[in-house]
Amino acid sequence: AGLDDMGELGEKRIRAAYKVLFKTDMAIFVNDGSPFQENELKALQRLKEMKLPVLVIFNKSDLRKPHQNNIEFCQDNDLAWISVSATTKENITVAKEKIIELAPFYLKEERPLVRDIVHSGDRVILVTPIDSSAPKGRLILPQVQVLRDLLDSGAVTTVVREFELNKALKALKSEPDLVITDSQVIQRVVNQLPPQVPLTTFSILFARYKGDLEALIKGCQKIDELKDGDRILIAEACSHHPQKDDIGRAKIPNWLKNYTQKDLNFDIAAGSDFPDNLEDYALIIHCGACMLNQKEMNNRIREAERRGVPITNYGLAISKLHGYFERTIAPLKIPFRA
Amino acid sequence: AGLDDMGELGEKRIRAAYKVLFKTDMAIFVNDGSPFQENELKALQRLKEMKLPVLVIFNKSDLRKPHQNNIEFCQDNDLAWISVSATTKENITVAKEKIIELAPFYLKEERPLVRDIVHSGDRVILVTPIDSSAPKGRLILPQVQVLRDLLDSGAVTTVVREFELNKALKALKSEPDLVITDSQVIQRVVNQLPPQVPLTTFSILFARYKGDLEALIKGCQKIDELKDGDRILIAEACSHHPQKDDIGRAKIPNWLKNYTQKDLNFDIAAGSDFPDNLEDYALIIHCGACMLNQKEMNNRIREAERRGVPITNYGLAISKLHGYFERTIAPLKIPFRA
Repeated sequence: AGLDDMGELGEKRIRAAYKVLFKTDMAIFVNDGSPFQENELKALQRLKEMKLPVLVIFNKSDLRKPHQNNIEFCQDNDLAWISVSATTKENITVAKEKIIELAPFYLKEERPLVRDIVHSGDRVILVTPIDSSAPKGRLILPQVQVLRDLLDSGAVTTVVREFELNKALKALKSEPDLVITDSQVIQRVVNQLPPQVPLTTFSILFARYKGDLEALIKGCQKIDELKDGDRILIAEACSHHPQKDDIGRAKIPNWLKNYTQKDLNFDIAAGSDFPDNLEDYALIIHCGACMLNQKEMNNRIREAERRGVPITNYGLAISKLHGYFERTIAPLKIPFRA
Repeated sequence: AGLDDMGELGEKRIRAAYKVLFKTDMAIFVNDGSPFQENELKALQRLKEMKLPVLVIFNKSDLRKPHQNNIEFCQDNDLAWISVSATTKENITVAKEKIIELAPFYLKEERPLVRDIVHSGDRVILVTPIDSSAPKGRLILPQVQVLRDLLDSGAVTTVVREFELNKALKALKSEPDLVITDSQVIQRVVNQLPPQVPLTTFSILFARYKGDLEALIKGCQKIDELKDGDRILIAEACSHHPQKDDIGRAKIPNWLKNYTQKDLNFDIAAGSDFPDNLEDYALIIHCGACMLNQKEMNNRIREAERRGVPITNYGLAISKLHGYFERTIAPLKIPFRA
């Protein structure tokens, strides 16, 4: 199946090919040096429209130089290209370097979870509610991961339930340098915390760690533009057994209706794939992605972006719907895009 | 195979049967009401010697009453007994209640990890070194479990590496109510901590939680009685890949030789079973048992006790060998034996 198939079946194939492209991190476009055909030019055009990083590889440099028209097309369209020979291995190493260079930022950086926003010796408070969803006798993994990253950074971290935050504040000689809370108890935390104390949430740290915080922040702003009749997709990475007053099925929809005062429709997508009709939604609100790795979460963000659908996540949406968006974003560095 | 087999093969069978008894929590001795035979009396005598809780069940109460001699034997030897009928179900419920009543303490209690020695609002410091054995991006499970138990108890818990303990102490308005450290950095912790601050170790909490702290403390005192030529068994529950300067293979043997100034021999037993020759050892030093549950660890302690071999664990031994035994035991309640 390719981008240039014809007829009814061809159309289906093209759609399938695009579906793959929506999930693609970069495109390597191989041509043997002969002048680009019509379908090749169309495909390159489409890749550009999708804002995919593209490397055009002219193979068979041992047989012929790439056609001058091809080189000009690449130059005019700002497409990176290189001439190689798979047979003689000419330029293969340079081609690999170009691929690394062109790879999107979210594949290249080793991302910090929290250590880039604290200094050694900083006093940090983690607010970790213990509810029925916590594993028996343990803590949920994201909390352990944040604590570990803080330990590695030399921070002095105090961990309490939401009920003990006041006691934790009183136990410290001075105000903490940072408070990180579970999103679901943010209202209670804000009520106890002096307004000047930097505050963020586990979900926002993970939005930055696993996703593309800038894209998710942009998506979150869309909440203010929602209109009556808009459809919202609640997207969950796992297919967990929904709990009473489920965060995705009950809490977020209710908060969103209260905040916007609009007549909104909600769909739930749970599991390993996005639904086909992403374009039908005014906004996607994605779960914290604890079951996805960085690449998988970024694929979803990229796919939403390429299909023109704003996407945000639970943590950011919850902060916004409670009125603490600016405050909880403020402590973060958003360094992932140069 | 039974306790009353005869001949060479019989002896092997008897040994096998005893091996099972070493691991048994209680014995239920069934007789049909007829007068005890010689072999039955011998077996009951042996169970008594092993200090196993025994319930004698006289079955077939629908056919006959238990013989008067049997009842007198039980009374004289302080053996609990009951007369039941498996056919008519007479007294079956009472028998079940007697089993529960006779079950050893370590099977009945829901054990606290740490919450019984802290009060709501207590300030606790956990010292958690991050070395190469820590899982990437996370914490080891025993540390997470202690933190969770402290959260449940309403404590205000500060978690730091050994390098940040001073900073943690300085960040607090007053001295902490309890410090819990990894055993391996206890010297560094003691150097930084005012002598009046209560101090214990993760290993000692787990010795109490998973084992029988009283038995392990008693075993630990044996260290002061070791003689030249004594053999020590280092017992590990898992068969992990030994690390450079391994705690069981290198550190503890070295510390023990330094402390006792005796010529000691060490054997390592790693895995799911105790070796057959337990009686050859002057002392068993058992690992922290993170891979064993309470029942499995207690079986090992019971087996050592029944074979007359003192047993202690890494955490207690390390405290003792560093000279902090009394201090690290002091914060603990030892409530498991009435």
